[in-house]
This record gives sequence, structure tokens and C-alpha cells, in this order.
Amino acid sequence: MATFGFAEYNDATPEVKAVYDDIMATCQTDWINNFWKGLAHDPALLKRTWNDVKHIMAPGAFDPLVKELIYLAVSVTNGCPYCIAAHTVSARNKGMSEAMFHELMSVVGMANEPNRLVNSYQIEIDEAFKTPLK
Amino acid sequence: MATFGFAEYNDATPEVKAVYDDIMATCQTDWINNFWKGLAHDPALLKRTWNDVKHIMAPGAFDPLVKELIYLAVSVTNGCPYCIAAHTVSARNKGMSEAMFHELMSVVGMANEPNRLVNSYQIEIDEAFKTPLK
Amino acid sequence: MATFGFAEYNDATPEVKAVYDDIMATCQTDWINNFWKGLAHDPALLKRTWNDVKHIMAPGAFDPLVKELIYLAVSVTNGCPYCIAAHTVSARNKGMSEAMFHELMSVVGMANEPNRLVNSYQIEIDEAFKTPLK
Amino acid sequence: MATFGFAEYNDATPEVKAVYDDIMATCQTDWINNFWKGLAHDPALLKRTWNDVKHIMAPGAFDPLVKELIYLAVSVTNGCPYCIAAHTVSARNKGMSEAMFHELMSVVGMANEPNRLVNSYQIEIDEAFKTPLK
Amino acid sequence: MATFGFAEYNDATPEVKAVYDDIMATCQTDWINNFWKGLAHDPALLKRTWNDVKHIMAPGAFDPLVKELIYLAVSVTNGCPYCIAAHTVSARNKGMSEAMFHELMSVVGMANEPNRLVNSYQIEIDEAFKTPLK
Amino acid sequence: MATFGFAEYNDATPEVKAVYDDIMATCQTDWINNFWKGLAHDPALLKRTWNDVKHIMAPGAFDPLVKELIYLAVSVTNGCPYCIAAHTVSARNKGMSEAMFHELMSVVGMANEPNRLVNSYQIEIDEAFKTPLK
Repeated sequence: MATFGFAEYNDATPEVKAVYDDIMATCQTDWINNFWKGLAHDPALLKRTWNDVKHIMAPGAFDPLVKELIYLAVSVTNGCPYCIAAHTVSARNKGMSEAMFHELMSVVGMANEPNRLVNSYQIEIDEAFKTPLK
Repeated sequence: MATFGFAEYNDATPEVKAVYDDIMATCQTDWINNFWKGLAHDPALLKRTWNDVKHIMAPGAFDPLVKELIYLAVSVTNGCPYCIAAHTVSARNKGMSEAMFHELMSVVGMANEPNRLVNSYQIEIDEAFKTPLK
Repeated sequence: MATFGFAEYNDATPEVKAVYDDIMATCQTDWINNFWKGLAHDPALLKRTWNDVKHIMAPGAFDPLVKELIYLAVSVTNGCPYCIAAHTVSARNKGMSEAMFHELMSVVGMANEPNRLVNSYQIEIDEAFKTPLK
Repeated sequence: MATFGFAEYNDATPEVKAVYDDIMATCQTDWINNFWKGLAHDPALLKRTWNDVKHIMAPGAFDPLVKELIYLAVSVTNGCPYCIAAHTVSARNKGMSEAMFHELMSVVGMANEPNRLVNSYQIEIDEAFKTPLK
Repeated sequence: MATFGFAEYNDATPEVKAVYDDIMATCQTDWINNFWKGLAHDPALLKRTWNDVKHIMAPGAFDPLVKELIYLAVSVTNGCPYCIAAHTVSARNKGMSEAMFHELMSVVGMANEPNRLVNSYQIEIDEAFKTPLK
Repeated sequence: MATFGFAEYNDATPEVKAVYDDIMATCQTDWINNFWKGLAHDPALLKRTWNDVKHIMAPGAFDPLVKELIYLAVSVTNGCPYCIAAHTVSARNKGMSEAMFHELMSVVGMANEPNRLVNSYQIEIDEAFKTPLK
């Protein structure tokens, strides 16, 4: 029940097709997942979102697997079932082992607890944590 | 204005002191930050939280730096200023470069956007994302 | 699997029926959606919630469409699939064009990113933003 | 205590200065607020974020004031004090009256309540809300 | 830096004063806290919010202390520093012991962890949990 | 579509079986729900999570029903459908009446509103709320 349905490759405008082609080439895959097909009714949004994802998730100070894991950590914390399903598969494809998955989720699950305890005990930030890194 | 104030080392019970000593030995530091001193009014909570943190953040499938970064990603998403301040410093101490920080936050910031777009466009999970990993 | 099932019009008490009648009259519709039928097991909650919605969503400084869009922005940010489905339809019925939907969601999706970046870079509020509006 | 401090105009690289200049020209202002100065240590992040904001917040199906109000609704729901302070002032500068502010916040505050009630009563989406808009 | 400043009792309109008087009588106190004084610039919002709080927090199936604790659990989970500070004091005034506070926060902190683990392991709802209570 | 499927009792390792046995003995039930079976692929996570739940949810300053209700309040606020379904049933089994459910959810739903209003009106914490409880 996607709000506008899904824009399939064959029915897409040239502008949307160009983004789809770039997604498939960059991700080395031969299909387009629902996220992009649902967004494609707004070509500007599709293009901007894909460009941001493409550049931010590219190798840099971290390899792409670590970036996938961070993305997954955010999606689990926000409770986005689609993003969790999609990025679990894509982390797996980039080399996430089962042990990595378990450790990732142990950290994510656990971190949510002190995040709340700090709130409840109204903990003030230590002076030692207030120095700029630079 | 911590809810119960801070339990300083010298005033702490032997049970609390034992946890403080283990924290300082494990983290190779000579002071206790406000988080632990604020929780220490409930020694059972202090002990359990520290044990969980100690075991989950220990080296395993990931090195401790990656775990710090995941912790930070969760804290930023939840909006916990104390946790962000503390774990930014501790990630730095474990070797986070400035470039790593920027890339981490670019992923975290960006991931929050598709997390919401999926909601708004009511995207259904692709069948291909529904296969168990095992 | 609503927690208490749905209270249908014909089985409802006069107190609940009166609320249902007011909903249908106000919204110019001839049916009651699941939200109200699920809440109706607690007539006080039903009545209070409906009264709040009725008064707050009525035309005022904004027309009802803008209010629907704000409601939708909140529901997307909170990740409430029911609310998103229901208010997307009702915004459409009040005149939301497809272009409006796309722009709305572009703003909502995007806003979530700086909301997190501010956390991660620990940005302090500028003095210029601290003056009361009055 | 911004994580890397603030990059002031006079100390900025030409790349960062160019973004600052575009911000001041676009927003018709003569100063740069802390958000941009805190991000500027990562010029790529600064540039990308500014470009997204600039294009998404430009007039389109909605006038800029409505977009500011939607941005504010998201920031209040996420609990981002910096964003709330900054966009309250900027909504005011774009013509938000006091009455508008009150109505906006009445909708935002109220919407959070049914968002949770739907969760608690486990309300299923009505079939009538499942039709794509297109 | 409240958005509109605080509306003090002596400067308030009769409509606002009437709400303030009812707050002080109901809560058996002789002062008005910032929350109400900040909202009072919108008398309709002030009145509606106070009426909802007054009726919902009144003794019923639970005594007022349990209701305060539930309120606090929500505020900690949402990360609302003002609400946490205010309702911690008011729970204390209604009889919350230190042991109660610690147990409350142990449950709240802990519950946040399985809430995320369920997301990460994509746990489906058991059939046994799908029967309406009625 | 649990990420790793469910680890059934008969196929489980002795380590996992021991946890399952303790769960069934402690909860006085003869089956294991999906949450534990989904987590069991990481026996360390299963064991640690169960131990935390077992100790924190045991009778103490509050009876187990109040703890269930607090758990439910958190899960509703976080929007965790599995946790809501599971803990609604388990609260019922521990004696939650229908009236209790309605009052609980009235408090939870309502509390989310002032949590946001405080954000929007930028309310400062009263000095009177800043005194440590001890």
C-alpha cells in the first residue's frame, strides 16, 4: 500500500531511469528495491536522496560494511522495519558475519539503556567532557 | 542537579568502591565520571549496568573503537547530550580521527532521513528482504 | 487484533453513539474509522480525545489542510503507521495535491537530519535565538 | 562546547566562505549561526547540508513560512532544543504570528497523543486507508 | 528563554488566574510552576491542558503516585528534562521512596533494550498475543 | 521473518535449553515466546537479557503488575508493537483489569503531549525542581 504505488523501471521517465541505472551500477545489482520505486513519484526527491546515499556510503575513513552497520544501528533505534530488513541484507552482502550482527545488536540494545538512565538520574556533563576535540 | 547527587569514591560503600575500582582498572583511568557516580545510589543498578557495559564493549568481532562509534550513533539518534559528550571523548581516546567523526555523523544524520521517508511513503518490505540470514 | 476489538455503532452505548454521531457530522462522513472504534471501550477517553481533536483541528489561524499536514509531519516523525495512513487520506480529502505531499515529506525527511547533526556536533544555541518573541 | 568549536568567517577556507556567503545572500542576513559554524569543520557536510536546506525550503507548493512551521513541528517532536530556538526565530521573521505559533503547537502537542494511543490499543489500519493516492 | 516568557499571576487575565487558582487548589500548593506560566500566553491551550491533566491524574483504578510514576516513565523515555525534573519532585511529594525511584528507573532503562532488540531481530508477534482482551 | 528464524526448544543447545527452562519455571508457563527464540542464536545475549529481565521484574518496592505496566508505558512510547502485544497479555495475566488498562493508556497518551509542549514553549526548569532528593 505504498502511498503512490511503485514506479517500475519500464514505466519510468528517462530522468527516473537514469537514477535507477546508477543505483544498479553502483550497488552491482539488477533490481531496484521498493524504497526507490516508492520515492520515484518525486524525481527530485529520488535523485537527491540517492546522491546523498551514494556519496555518504562510499568508502572513506570507514569501509562500506562499517557504514552499513552504523546505518542499521540508527534504523533499529528509530524503529524503521523497512530499513532494518533492507540494510540487514545489504550488510550481509557486504560481509557481515553472524557474530558481527549479534555484537552490533548487543551494543545497540545496551546503549539505549544508559541513554535513558542518564535522563532519569539527571546526570550533568562532566567538565572533562566539555573540551572541544580540536 | 543529579537526582541524588554524586557518590564520591571516598564516601562510597565497599560494594560501590569495588565497582569504581573495576571501572578505573578496565578503562585505564584514574577518575570516575558522573554517570557512575549518579547511579551509585542504587548499587545493584550500578553493578549490573557496569557489568553489561564491560562485557558488551570488550573486543570481539569488532574492536572497541567500532563499538564506541556504534554507541555514539545510537546516542545521537536518541538525543542524549551526556552520552554524546562522554562517548565522543572516549572514542577519541580509542583512536577516532577527525575524519572518522565526520563520516560517522554524515551516516547517522543521513540515515535519519530515509528512516522517515519510508514512513511517509508507506513503503512495503520487499520479498527479497524477508529471507532469514540463516 | 485491536486490544479490545472494535465497538461498532450498532452495539455502542448511547454515550458512545453520541460521539460517533458528532464525528460523522463534523467530518461529513458516514462511517467511523478503527481509531475511534478501538478507543470506545473507554468512553471517557473517546470523548476527551475527540473533543480535543475537534477543537484543535478546526479552522483558525490556519486552514484545516495545513493542520492536517502538520499532524502528518508529527506522525511520520514518530513512526505511527496508522496515523500516517489515516491522515494521508484525510489530507488528500481536504485538498492536498501530489506536489504538496512530496514537498511536505521532503521537509520532514530533511529536518530529521539537522536535528541529529546538532546533537552530534553539540551545537550551542546562539544568543540571538534566546530572545522571547514577546 | 561544540565538538570542534566554531569556524568563524574570517578564519574559514575559501570553500567554506563560499557556502557562508551563499547562506547570507539567500537568507538575507549578515551573520552565520552556530549550526553552520559547527558543521564547517567538514566542508563536504556543510555544503551538502546547506544545498539540501536551500532547495527544500525554497518556495514551491508551499510558501516558505509553511515549510518553517513543518520544520518546527518535526524539531519539537524530536526534541531538538537548538533547532526549536533557531526555527522559532526564523518562522517569526517569515511572518509567523503569535496565534499561528499557538495553533501550531496545539496541533503538534495533541498529535503526539493519538500517535501513542494507536500503539496502545493496537489499532489496525482500515481498508479504506490502504488505497494508493494515485 | 521561554518562547513568550512567563505569565505571572499578578499580570494574568481573569481567565488565566482562574486556571492558576484551580491548579493551586487541586495540587495544594501556593505557587505556579514554569510549565503553566509558559503556556498561559494561549489561555485555551492552558485551560485544555490543565483540564486533561487534572482529570487523568486524579485517583481512579490507580492511586495518584502510580500515575506520577507512569508519567515519569514516559518522560524519561521521551527525554524531556523539564518533565523529569518536575515529576520527580512531585512523585516524591506523593510518597515515592528512594527504593521506588531506583526500581522504576531500572524497569524503564531495561525496557528500552528489548524494545530495540525486537526491532533488530525482526521478531514476529506470537499468535498467542493476538487475542483481544475482551 | 525473524532475522535468524526461531530456535525451538528441541533443537536448542543445552546452554539455551537451560535459559528456556528457567524462563518457563519463573514465568510459570509451558512455552517460550518468539522474543526469546529469536534472540537465542546469540546465547550470551539471550542469557544476559533474561537475567536482567528476571531480576528487574521480580517483586521489590513494587509488585510485578506495576512493573509490567511501567514496561508497557515505555513500549507504547517507543512504539514497539511486539512488546506491546506481549506485555499487554502478561499484564492481564498478572491482574490488570480493563479499567487499569484504560487509565494507564490515558496517562501515557496524555504525558506525550506536555513532553512536546515543554519543548515548543522552551520552558526552563524551575529552581524548585533542581534540589537533589537526598
